[in-house]
Amino acid sequence: MNIKIIGNSLPNIPWQDRNKTDGLPVWRFDGNPILKRNPTKLAARVFNSAVVPWGDGFIGVFRADMNMQNPQLFLGRSDDGIKWEIEEGPICWYREDGTKSPLGNFAYDPRVIKIDDEYYIVWCCEFADMPSLGIGKTKDFKHFTRINNPFIPFNRNGVLFPKKINGNYQLLSRPSDSGHTPFGDIFISESPDMKYWGNHRLVMRSGSCLWESTKIGAGPVPIETTEGWLMIYHGVVTTCSGYVYSMGAALLDKDEPSKVLMRCKNYIFTPEEDYEVVGFVPNVAFPVAALTDADTGRIAIYYGAADTYTALAFTTVEELYEYMKENNELNHWDTDVIR
Amino acid sequence: MNIKIIGNSLPNIPWQDRNKTDGLPVWRFDGNPILKRNPTKLAARVFNSAVVPWGDGFIGVFRADMNMQNPQLFLGRSDDGIKWEIEEGPICWYREDGTKSPLGNFAYDPRVIKIDDEYYIVWCCEFADMPSLGIGKTKDFKHFTRINNPFIPFNRNGVLFPKKINGNYQLLSRPSDSGHTPFGDIFISESPDMKYWGNHRLVMRSGSCLWESTKIGAGPVPIETTEGWLMIYHGVVTTCSGYVYSMGAALLDKDEPSKVLMRCKNYIFTPEEDYEVVGFVPNVAFPVAALTDADTGRIAIYYGAADTYTALAFTTVEELYEYMKENNELNHWDTDVIR
Amino acid sequence: MNIKIIGNSLPNIPWQDRNKTDGLPVWRFDGNPILKRNPTKLAARVFNSAVVPWGDGFIGVFRADMNMQNPQLFLGRSDDGIKWEIEEGPICWYREDGTKSPLGNFAYDPRVIKIDDEYYIVWCCEFADMPSLGIGKTKDFKHFTRINNPFIPFNRNGVLFPKKINGNYQLLSRPSDSGHTPFGDIFISESPDMKYWGNHRLVMRSGSCLWESTKIGAGPVPIETTEGWLMIYHGVVTTCSGYVYSMGAALLDKDEPSKVLMRCKNYIFTPEEDYEVVGFVPNVAFPVAALTDADTGRIAIYYGAADTYTALAFTTVEELYEYMKENNELNHWDTDVIR
Amino acid sequence: MNIKIIGNSLPNIPWQDRNKTDGLPVWRFDGNPILKRNPTKLAARVFNSAVVPWGDGFIGVFRADMNMQNPQLFLGRSDDGIKWEIEEGPICWYREDGTKSPLGNFAYDPRVIKIDDEYYIVWCCEFADMPSLGIGKTKDFKHFTRINNPFIPFNRNGVLFPKKINGNYQLLSRPSDSGHTPFGDIFISESPDMKYWGNHRLVMRSGSCLWESTKIGAGPVPIETTEGWLMIYHGVVTTCSGYVYSMGAALLDKDEPSKVLMRCKNYIFTPEEDYEVVGFVPNVAFPVAALTDADTGRIAIYYGAADTYTALAFTTVEELYEYMKENNELNHWDTDVIR
Amino acid sequence: MNIKIIGNSLPNIPWQDRNKTDGLPVWRFDGNPILKRNPTKLAARVFNSAVVPWGDGFIGVFRADMNMQNPQLFLGRSDDGIKWEIEEGPICWYREDGTKSPLGNFAYDPRVIKIDDEYYIVWCCEFADMPSLGIGKTKDFKHFTRINNPFIPFNRNGVLFPKKINGNYQLLSRPSDSGHTPFGDIFISESPDMKYWGNHRLVMRSGSCLWESTKIGAGPVPIETTEGWLMIYHGVVTTCSGYVYSMGAALLDKDEPSKVLMRCKNYIFTPEEDYEVVGFVPNVAFPVAALTDADTGRIAIYYGAADTYTALAFTTVEELYEYMKENNELNHWDTDVIR
Amino acid sequence: MNIKIIGNSLPNIPWQDRNKTDGLPVWRFDGNPILKRNPTKLAARVFNSAVVPWGDGFIGVFRADMNMQNPQLFLGRSDDGIKWEIEEGPICWYREDGTKSPLGNFAYDPRVIKIDDEYYIVWCCEFADMPSLGIGKTKDFKHFTRINNPFIPFNRNGVLFPKKINGNYQLLSRPSDSGHTPFGDIFISESPDMKYWGNHRLVMRSGSCLWESTKIGAGPVPIETTEGWLMIYHGVVTTCSGYVYSMGAALLDKDEPSKVLMRCKNYIFTPEEDYEVVGFVPNVAFPVAALTDADTGRIAIYYGAADTYTALAFTTVEELYEYMKENNELNHWDTDVIR
Repeated sequence: MNIKIIGNSLPNIPWQDRNKTDGLPVWRFDGNPILKRNPTKLAARVFNSAVVPWGDGFIGVFRADMNMQNPQLFLGRSDDGIKWEIEEGPICWYREDGTKSPLGNFAYDPRVIKIDDEYYIVWCCEFADMPSLGIGKTKDFKHFTRINNPFIPFNRNGVLFPKKINGNYQLLSRPSDSGHTPFGDIFISESPDMKYWGNHRLVMRSGSCLWESTKIGAGPVPIETTEGWLMIYHGVVTTCSGYVYSMGAALLDKDEPSKVLMRCKNYIFTPEEDYEVVGFVPNVAFPVAALTDADTGRIAIYYGAADTYTALAFTTVEELYEYMKENNELNHWDTDVIR
Repeated sequence: MNIKIIGNSLPNIPWQDRNKTDGLPVWRFDGNPILKRNPTKLAARVFNSAVVPWGDGFIGVFRADMNMQNPQLFLGRSDDGIKWEIEEGPICWYREDGTKSPLGNFAYDPRVIKIDDEYYIVWCCEFADMPSLGIGKTKDFKHFTRINNPFIPFNRNGVLFPKKINGNYQLLSRPSDSGHTPFGDIFISESPDMKYWGNHRLVMRSGSCLWESTKIGAGPVPIETTEGWLMIYHGVVTTCSGYVYSMGAALLDKDEPSKVLMRCKNYIFTPEEDYEVVGFVPNVAFPVAALTDADTGRIAIYYGAADTYTALAFTTVEELYEYMKENNELNHWDTDVIR
Repeated sequence: MNIKIIGNSLPNIPWQDRNKTDGLPVWRFDGNPILKRNPTKLAARVFNSAVVPWGDGFIGVFRADMNMQNPQLFLGRSDDGIKWEIEEGPICWYREDGTKSPLGNFAYDPRVIKIDDEYYIVWCCEFADMPSLGIGKTKDFKHFTRINNPFIPFNRNGVLFPKKINGNYQLLSRPSDSGHTPFGDIFISESPDMKYWGNHRLVMRSGSCLWESTKIGAGPVPIETTEGWLMIYHGVVTTCSGYVYSMGAALLDKDEPSKVLMRCKNYIFTPEEDYEVVGFVPNVAFPVAALTDADTGRIAIYYGAADTYTALAFTTVEELYEYMKENNELNHWDTDVIR
Repeated sequence: MNIKIIGNSLPNIPWQDRNKTDGLPVWRFDGNPILKRNPTKLAARVFNSAVVPWGDGFIGVFRADMNMQNPQLFLGRSDDGIKWEIEEGPICWYREDGTKSPLGNFAYDPRVIKIDDEYYIVWCCEFADMPSLGIGKTKDFKHFTRINNPFIPFNRNGVLFPKKINGNYQLLSRPSDSGHTPFGDIFISESPDMKYWGNHRLVMRSGSCLWESTKIGAGPVPIETTEGWLMIYHGVVTTCSGYVYSMGAALLDKDEPSKVLMRCKNYIFTPEEDYEVVGFVPNVAFPVAALTDADTGRIAIYYGAADTYTALAFTTVEELYEYMKENNELNHWDTDVIR
Repeated sequence: MNIKIIGNSLPNIPWQDRNKTDGLPVWRFDGNPILKRNPTKLAARVFNSAVVPWGDGFIGVFRADMNMQNPQLFLGRSDDGIKWEIEEGPICWYREDGTKSPLGNFAYDPRVIKIDDEYYIVWCCEFADMPSLGIGKTKDFKHFTRINNPFIPFNRNGVLFPKKINGNYQLLSRPSDSGHTPFGDIFISESPDMKYWGNHRLVMRSGSCLWESTKIGAGPVPIETTEGWLMIYHGVVTTCSGYVYSMGAALLDKDEPSKVLMRCKNYIFTPEEDYEVVGFVPNVAFPVAALTDADTGRIAIYYGAADTYTALAFTTVEELYEYMKENNELNHWDTDVIR
Repeated sequence: MNIKIIGNSLPNIPWQDRNKTDGLPVWRFDGNPILKRNPTKLAARVFNSAVVPWGDGFIGVFRADMNMQNPQLFLGRSDDGIKWEIEEGPICWYREDGTKSPLGNFAYDPRVIKIDDEYYIVWCCEFADMPSLGIGKTKDFKHFTRINNPFIPFNRNGVLFPKKINGNYQLLSRPSDSGHTPFGDIFISESPDMKYWGNHRLVMRSGSCLWESTKIGAGPVPIETTEGWLMIYHGVVTTCSGYVYSMGAALLDKDEPSKVLMRCKNYIFTPEEDYEVVGFVPNVAFPVAALTDADTGRIAIYYGAADTYTALAFTTVEELYEYMKENNELNHWDTDVIR
């Protein structure tokens, strides 16, 4: 239980002490949802969004479904990580050759991470009308450059690790199809330069537990700890009324992150409150970003609720690790697969 | 912005001034829903219903899903268009030869319009167990005569224009299949006599905008304006939990209504309130009828909510037209198609 | 209208007088839901559960979906049939040879009935990963013995009659497939010894009424009356957002229970309250058990709500029988089929 | 057995006496197939084609799948109805206003009939990329005029009657969907002018016999006889390897052709020879045209074989009628349906 | 290799010595197919049929698809097991109470076995329009009595063992769905009296080898040998053109036939000749019956070819056993499953 | 018409002069099929195989479906390119670290190309049970080394260009799903080192022509010519009986091979002979390899027939180019797409 987060202090991390006793390691913010319907003129629903510290406050890349319902990426700023100002128009991307990249029909589910002095954004982008992974970068959140088609369709839920491992960038993703994909496992890929990717390996398959029996996908950027990489992810089950999205947790090996050290058989959070159970897509709790404070072990998880709201939940690295240990259950895919 | 409704005065139109500022051109009635569950002994849910002025008040043809859940058409009367008395039993139809038409297993989604001195009703009728378009007429809402199978299965969402154009009646419809049709475009057909229909043309396809990517279908009877026919319609998107129905708007050419002059890329209204998001079918706002007052440009839209309730929304012809102009986006099907 | 329940007195039956006037014969308990989310540490949602009198109070076998979402059977005890204590861990089964039966990945939708001096439990069990019918018995609710695979996959919703008929045990079931089965009719099977089953016959097909057009399955153990076996069952309709589960009622012949004497074309209860319409699976009211008092004709129905809650509803044998008579409609499958 | 064909003499009808004794009323031409693969440079496979007498010989409209596999209509001429010369390029259509109609992506399964002094062609045409019915006419097989979109999508297998009945043109068709439609019944429609169509009625549903359990569609132009309209049609069954197309026969009322007088429960012909069982689509015998000789009662049926070849089969009106009488079996849809 | 068949001598078993050297243990009869299309007036295709010794010759129960394509059971007689006389009309069944059982819409894929002095027939019968298992018996092949619904839908490919084991009758079957079932495993059931069945267990799952990856089902009655029960079965793979049926072999424990001792990973026979690859359903070799001679170890397999023909193949118990040993590969389902 | 092949002389190229006059540019070898069923003990069907010159003769990597029907890669040798000796067991792969790579459940559809002094093999390999692209190399066809998972699932039909372009290796592929993928377009990827791949671009989409309307995939290694890269590929159409595979041709830009210069709207070859139309999968002609002789412009195409046989077809670069020019038709995806 001496697990520690490896990383920076973040004394102004949004926080609220535990407010429930149901045995699960993650609890909700009382002020949820922090973003309601129609927060700006163009943005009808803001959810599945990524947040990082910036200056004295926070900055984020938000998925906003517009009045056409097409999703685009918007920038947002906040002093406390709770009240957010969303910009009026979508982020404008430039290609590597300096030309403007057209907005396209969709861009969604961004993740953001700082590596060295660059902020990298990975999102589900349009590639010849098909969903693929876009990778872009910015130093100042003013000028945004995207790499030329680093991934082939069909893919979603791309998440970078916060640093190179074994000299290469590492990225989790979930190969998919062109629709509401009814399957999905987490893969890892590596790259010397963010441009060319290879040496792909399978990390984890959708499990035998019902809550993650249909598909799984990486959530926030993995959190570096003294015990390995803490990966919070989403798992999906199919009921006779559609998909239900819950959160799960696993621990990956520090040096070989395709190796699963621990996998929690229970979900760590599942949609139960009205703003999670009712909305554009009922029964969705979709984790996308996590702020962490290495001093206290606090973790603040930003998640999309019901494809309609942005919400906050909390845990600490100790509580989560303890729960994972108690409910650890690796299946043969997590251990035997030839990577 | 000098657009005007061409039509009658309706000083007693149900009305409430704008009560929100989210940028969208249509707003809800505070007293919604105006018809709740189980309004009569036989009617479990009343929604997707059509209303016209009648004497000093209003009369309407209502879709009521009964305790067997089979839908039938019921007559309703109201002084103010808000509080409604629904009749106890379904409308009884007679065929052209004077014989009684059996009730059948289903009848739903009626539209009503007065042309010359007749009231015409178009609905989704049963044709050898398959959904097709019924067309009937009445002068007094006591005796109802239906035309012999004017349309072949499978069709739904038939809507007449309020007058002949180029000497022929005009009808919008959406060819479909026998189930929860996963596709659908709006066609126009014409007839010299309401009996024989031909010269069919495509008007609008389901669009590239997500909110209407699965299918579209005409809503209220098109509204004649100085700029063309104002068509409010429904558009459907498929999420991983089923269909979401929103409202859209387009402007059709006065003399050639198969020609789309303007098409609003944004929805003009989408399910957001509990009575639209929760119910027998979640996330449905389905426009069916519109009352208009030519003097003030006011439009009152009756819509079905969640296949459970009847609700009211408002706009004015100027506000709606302005919004459509700002967000106008024709795609190539709307302009190039050989009709 | 002189119908009487044949059976025991149950003066402490949970009860509340009629509290609505919508014409339907079954009404809700004001204190619903009687079991909310997370009632114990392991049980996230408790629903679709079976209850019988036991000593001065009540005992029940509950379906609890755990934090892995896999369902298991749990024992519960109550003084009044309303406030329940659920045990911490799942019921532990032994095979006929005395060995322990492994817990398996799922066990759900139990029914319980006392025949002679044994309590029999029928549930949907795992048979080589496939859903089948488990039959087990207990005298004391401490030691539970299950019969060796009495049914072949795929089957669900098995319900025993409370006594032998014509010298054989009788069981209703619904042959199904391995997923969210989109079809389903009620069959009856008989056995001399609970071990070997045969002489299967069709009882009722899913009907032409919409509310039960997709599938039907038996609910509580059939109630013996002076007019025949009163069968409360569930019927399912498919909307564009999934399944909706309502309750129906039928009367089966006393001596030949495969013969349908009466079938109510209307549902007798349908999801309308928030706890039935919103949850893990929206729009579910799934009847599983019924307590009856022969002296007063009172019936208390336990039903699962939205696959999330346990709830209670009430009727009397006279009211229900009267409503069934008014709305009786047998179709040709209910009368003509050669059994 | 005194049934007679009402119509012209055709002494040069292609003919061969019965060459098998398997009890079925239709037999094959020994010279089959009469059109093999690649009969012209552009035509890879010619099948499902329509033939009429013309001068001293015959003329026909042929479906040719081209080297792009897109089907188009080609003209063909023959002295004996067996050896055919196919024109080099597709038929060129003009619209009613004299402009040329573009070729489009597909045109298939034509039927041809002379009414008064015009030859009418009905085929499956492209309507905004969707299959619908085209109707065209010619007096000289040189200039071809088509009517403006007489039918809405989705439809196929349109077949005109050879004369007006009750003052209106009559047309059989099969409403369908946009793909390899897995359902289909025969409807009849009428029109005063070939332009506007209405009063649609159901004629026959796909039957309970396996060979026509998936769908049915009209074949050759109905043959007028002293007993009514003789309709040869195709019926389809779905095996685990796809569709199998056989031929069936029914008799329709002379004055009310939506009324089925007789329906043969057995197929009258089914794919058995190699050129029917092996090809682009295995197991297809698809009847499209019939030549008849009123003097002898002879009928020569042109059918497509395996979507690859054109072939000929023979019967006489007496033999066919006798077989139909022996195996007549109307189901309730053929008699009870309210038209 | 000292394996012996336990059973009777059958010196007149149809036979032909090995005529190919491709390494597979089963070879074809040169005179195949032994039954061609249209062997009688009513029978269009005869295949998937069962044969037993009878007097000096042989008798069989044949599946004949009639001119309506509906399948029925017909009796056939033969002196040499190769040339067969099929009766004119279908077998007429009587129920246990002596009343006649109606013919119904389908009856197919029979198996026949003598146990003590009765011949038992198991086939896929119609049960309220759904496929289930019929069990019937006859002493003289003149009067046929069927047991009242011994199995519930949906089931197919029922096969009895030739004697009681552990005091009970034993039956293999394949639970299925109502269509062209895309899954299927072999189960075993037991009964004290042929009437009531229970103690069901899983025997074998569809395998990881492609040829049997979609489903498997029992074929001929298992053959008793000194090493256990030799089970010849069919396995199905799904190509992009439908199903391909091959034959496989396994060895079951003598006393506990739910236990798989040996399972051959290779098919032992697959469709390769024209009469197997081309027909109503291409690529089908479906084994249904086996004659054996205990003196020589000869086995003659009757199989349906392409759902069109009846054909014969040969092997010996030694050759087959040797091949199975060389290619034996049990998977975990064959060994670990809790039965 | 002055197009020339850029490459080596191959005087011993298998060859036969044009033997048909149907207008299509490719003709069959009279000795087809060159590999029949069961050519070796383990190989039941050999097809979809790749061939290159080797010494005085030829060597090839063959797809052999074994008696388990699982496909594996086998080596074959030939003096004349027509008669082939297939090795007894599958190719054994080693990983980069020198360890043996397990055989796995499948390996199929190989392509082989020499770049500099290495022979590269690309095939559809198993990646955690999912189809992906394997890349391996050999200098001597004795020792085979494969690169570590260069591609993520799901992918198929990977084909290398015969030399680096713009300093990078180039590879065509078709992203797919895990089954009989019903869609598919050709993409190009590039790599500095065969290990890391990126800058993926779309080359060609499945076309509007029917023969390639379902999916397309690269065939033989592209042929370098004076006009650009000649790409022979397969196109698939879906009939009601499954897929039909034909061959098409396109010309890609020499320096920017993602740019389509020419695309032939007609197929250049389609299954017509019995060995292409009848077999394990009917109607397949699947091109995999091409031998070329720069001196004469001759091209010999190896193709799989009906997933059962290996066959040969011929053309010359001039004839093919001429035909492509006559039938050239680029669609907007081929020209406008932002790569």
